[in-house]
Amino acid sequence: MSTIRLNPLDTAWIFTESRATPNHVGGLLQFRLPEDAPRDFMRQMMAEFRNHRSFAPPWNRRLKYAFNKNPAPVWIEDDDIDLEYHVRHAALPWPGGERELGELVGRLQSTPLDLMRPPWECTLIEGLEGNRFAMFIKMHHSLIDGISGMKLLQRSMSTDRKRSLDLPPFWASGSPPAARAGREQALMPTMAHAAEAAVEALSGQARSLPQLAMAFGKILKRVGDPGDGMVVPFVDSPLSVLNGRVREKRRFATQQFTMERLRTLATAAGGTLNDVVLAICGGALRRFLLERDELPEQSLTAGIPVSVRPADDEGTGNAITFIISTLGTDITGAAERFQAIRRSVRHAKEHVQSLPRQAMGQYTVLLMAPTIITLLTGVGGHTRPMFNITISNVPGPDKPLYFRGAELLATYPASIVTHGQAVNITCQSYTGKMNFGYTGCHTSVPRLQRLAVYTADALAELEAAFLPQAAAKAVARSAPASRKAAAKAKANPAKVAARRPKAAGKTAKAA
Amino acid sequence: MSTIRLNPLDTAWIFTESRATPNHVGGLLQFRLPEDAPRDFMRQMMAEFRNHRSFAPPWNRRLKYAFNKNPAPVWIEDDDIDLEYHVRHAALPWPGGERELGELVGRLQSTPLDLMRPPWECTLIEGLEGNRFAMFIKMHHSLIDGISGMKLLQRSMSTDRKRSLDLPPFWASGSPPAARAGREQALMPTMAHAAEAAVEALSGQARSLPQLAMAFGKILKRVGDPGDGMVVPFVDSPLSVLNGRVREKRRFATQQFTMERLRTLATAAGGTLNDVVLAICGGALRRFLLERDELPEQSLTAGIPVSVRPADDEGTGNAITFIISTLGTDITGAAERFQAIRRSVRHAKEHVQSLPRQAMGQYTVLLMAPTIITLLTGVGGHTRPMFNITISNVPGPDKPLYFRGAELLATYPASIVTHGQAVNITCQSYTGKMNFGYTGCHTSVPRLQRLAVYTADALAELEAAFLPQAAAKAVARSAPASRKAAAKAKANPAKVAARRPKAAGKTAKAA
Repeated sequence: MSTIRLNPLDTAWIFTESRATPNHVGGLLQFRLPEDAPRDFMRQMMAEFRNHRSFAPPWNRRLKYAFNKNPAPVWIEDDDIDLEYHVRHAALPWPGGERELGELVGRLQSTPLDLMRPPWECTLIEGLEGNRFAMFIKMHHSLIDGISGMKLLQRSMSTDRKRSLDLPPFWASGSPPAARAGREQALMPTMAHAAEAAVEALSGQARSLPQLAMAFGKILKRVGDPGDGMVVPFVDSPLSVLNGRVREKRRFATQQFTMERLRTLATAAGGTLNDVVLAICGGALRRFLLERDELPEQSLTAGIPVSVRPADDEGTGNAITFIISTLGTDITGAAERFQAIRRSVRHAKEHVQSLPRQAMGQYTVLLMAPTIITLLTGVGGHTRPMFNITISNVPGPDKPLYFRGAELLATYPASIVTHGQAVNITCQSYTGKMNFGYTGCHTSVPRLQRLAVYTADALAELEAAFLPQAAAKAVARSAPASRKAAAKAKANPAKVAARRPKAAGKTAKAA
Repeated sequence: MSTIRLNPLDTAWIFTESRATPNHVGGLLQFRLPEDAPRDFMRQMMAEFRNHRSFAPPWNRRLKYAFNKNPAPVWIEDDDIDLEYHVRHAALPWPGGERELGELVGRLQSTPLDLMRPPWECTLIEGLEGNRFAMFIKMHHSLIDGISGMKLLQRSMSTDRKRSLDLPPFWASGSPPAARAGREQALMPTMAHAAEAAVEALSGQARSLPQLAMAFGKILKRVGDPGDGMVVPFVDSPLSVLNGRVREKRRFATQQFTMERLRTLATAAGGTLNDVVLAICGGALRRFLLERDELPEQSLTAGIPVSVRPADDEGTGNAITFIISTLGTDITGAAERFQAIRRSVRHAKEHVQSLPRQAMGQYTVLLMAPTIITLLTGVGGHTRPMFNITISNVPGPDKPLYFRGAELLATYPASIVTHGQAVNITCQSYTGKMNFGYTGCHTSVPRLQRLAVYTADALAELEAAFLPQAAAKAVARSAPASRKAAAKAKANPAKVAARRPKAAGKTAKAA
């Protein structure tokens, strides 16, 4: 049996796992039921799934701890996988909307995986309104990072509806993520890849875990003046409710916009798609915290994985690092907030891009250090945060995918929440839509679903500022939805739910 | 704020909690929806439940650990209870039968409670076929034992449907179980009470936890010849798959018979209701293990909490102890098995009853010792078992209860599974029905639902042996159900589910 040694970072995801901070990521996939789906479509799929006993890596890997000097576990192949553990069947209470789905996914994301088994779980969820169903897949970060996991899941589907009818479950068609093997391929700008780059840059200096932690500490002490108006880690990040200790229960919420809306806004405002994502998150966070009377005077900052080309890179190679940007939560006006964010991101990116490749590694290490130290030591949430929130924005498939004749409608990432980082926002695009997944600590971030609602409002505000005409159109576009809601309310007078006028865009809610 | 010190046994439930062996008990309550229930009946109930912020003990108690010499925690009142944690809303996948319910309850029973909060959770479960819904309530054994918990839940309902319409949730109408305060009241024959009696008998000898464990060990060494053909602990209990180490996931299954059937059989066979319960469990276990080729040559034994009056007790006082009986799993014939069990139970009871009160305490200690040592030290599943399985049989309410206009149809206990005890069967009677709850380790006891099915078959076998006429009637009684199933199969030809002829009695299935 072949064994695979874990790298120090992947090992850290295991050592720092606790009941309050389980280190698994998740993917919520929403599907439309095929039109001809029989009543027991889900039941049949469950039965087939549980009988599908061929496995592709990494889904058949489990940890094995060596009882010698080396504390790091290795991956071995598990020949005795209990699919009754890994595959579960659940349903949503009526009316089966985004709120009910968010509550269930929050619960699923709260419970740790069994690290004695291949560390993943798949839950088929029926009862989602609009003739839909969902799949929620949990994967331990030591096994695979969220984005690579999502890509593997997407690769197990087909762009051809007919061909999708007989596809095996994802664990039969996975393969070890190529991104981990070689860095030659185009990498996604994720925190995992940024952290890997950081650890790689350090690997010459320190090989064992304690030395690695010390090396990080030393580098951190050397932090000087980064100049050029960039956000300075620690100094420029205020204390906030997003940065305390977390507890074990999670909340999950979702939001979705068309890419067209975001791109049009970006063009009109003279920024990037990423600037728009940050600006709407900043606007939402400002209102969310203001309402709780917990908005820091100083602006919140975001840690953002980005793809850059270092100054001495003349080829087509890419490099992942991550930057810290303001979120402009100290600014009242939407347009001014956008500009502040745009400037901050541009400065940070230019700064990194001006560095030679070697220095960029050091820079990434510097920025990642607190995250990695938290990971390695489990200490976090007691100090001033390096940055206040991680916001990732990752491109996904642009053609519709199918599985067993069911169209994949949306795919929302659920991420890790840990001490010092109580909320995570990760977005992935898919067939012309941008899907936002908000993961938060249940205790320190009540009413997380409002953050999703306010994100839609923040987008509308930006449109009103930069695209007054388009904004008006968007309001008109949302009219049919309002008419639908009115019809619903008429049919069921007890359910006149909308307490506040809805902004343009579908506002998803969850607990 | 008043604090309540935990007794050593309750403390032990906390100290020996692990991911593989969480020490909570559960109650599954099944209700019929009121006829006039609106579509959002459950949703409304959820909303009301989450807003109901008055608490009666013990539901508002949480643990507080003292940071001094005493390692035992105390109970304090929690003023800041997060009902979003404690009250959850779930639904069953279609078709919402006992199988789907069992799978969900097994999952709920698998995850540990958050011991930083009042250690209980309540899940409202909709989508149960037959116009029903369910409530599953988890309670940590240190807070309340299962049977006392069930009694508290039942006390929060009403025998009057109308009066039940405005009842608050159970946490507003509970009260600390009187049984714990004084032993003068009639006690239920439960393992918890037997263990309490044992610890009480020992309390003069040893007060601290380590001394207690040593005292148990010493007494255990003194075990001599119990004479009179009784089952001798350890010596007479074979090793079996029911007695190894357990893992963290649970299965749950249910079964239900009319009390009339059980009583008629008991009379015809010349035994007690308890003998019948043991005999049908014995018959089911024999077949279950035989099918897996894992039936020990020697008969399995059961630990059974019983209520007895010691020899020197001339008043009306009662005493709880527990006895060990054969389950006759080495005997082929149902009638012979029944007689062996009846004799074994009678001998054990007579033996205990012949003891003076003080000696009965010692006897209980002796029988409970391994259980308590396991509890105190967390060691179990490595040695020969004291007995193979716990089977409890507890009387419940005999009048129908209502909550919010919904009739309580059945109440099934979910119990603790631990190292060395991978299955537990607990029964509670309610309005002329006997409800069986089977809790098992997911890994070591696959197909637990078959045990429920085989229990029904074992009952039919006993009826055929002792009541040939009544057995024929019972088959006739089950005919309407069969017709119903046939009609169902006609309506949905894909679902001709019954693979084997069903015995009389409703056979509930679960994962």
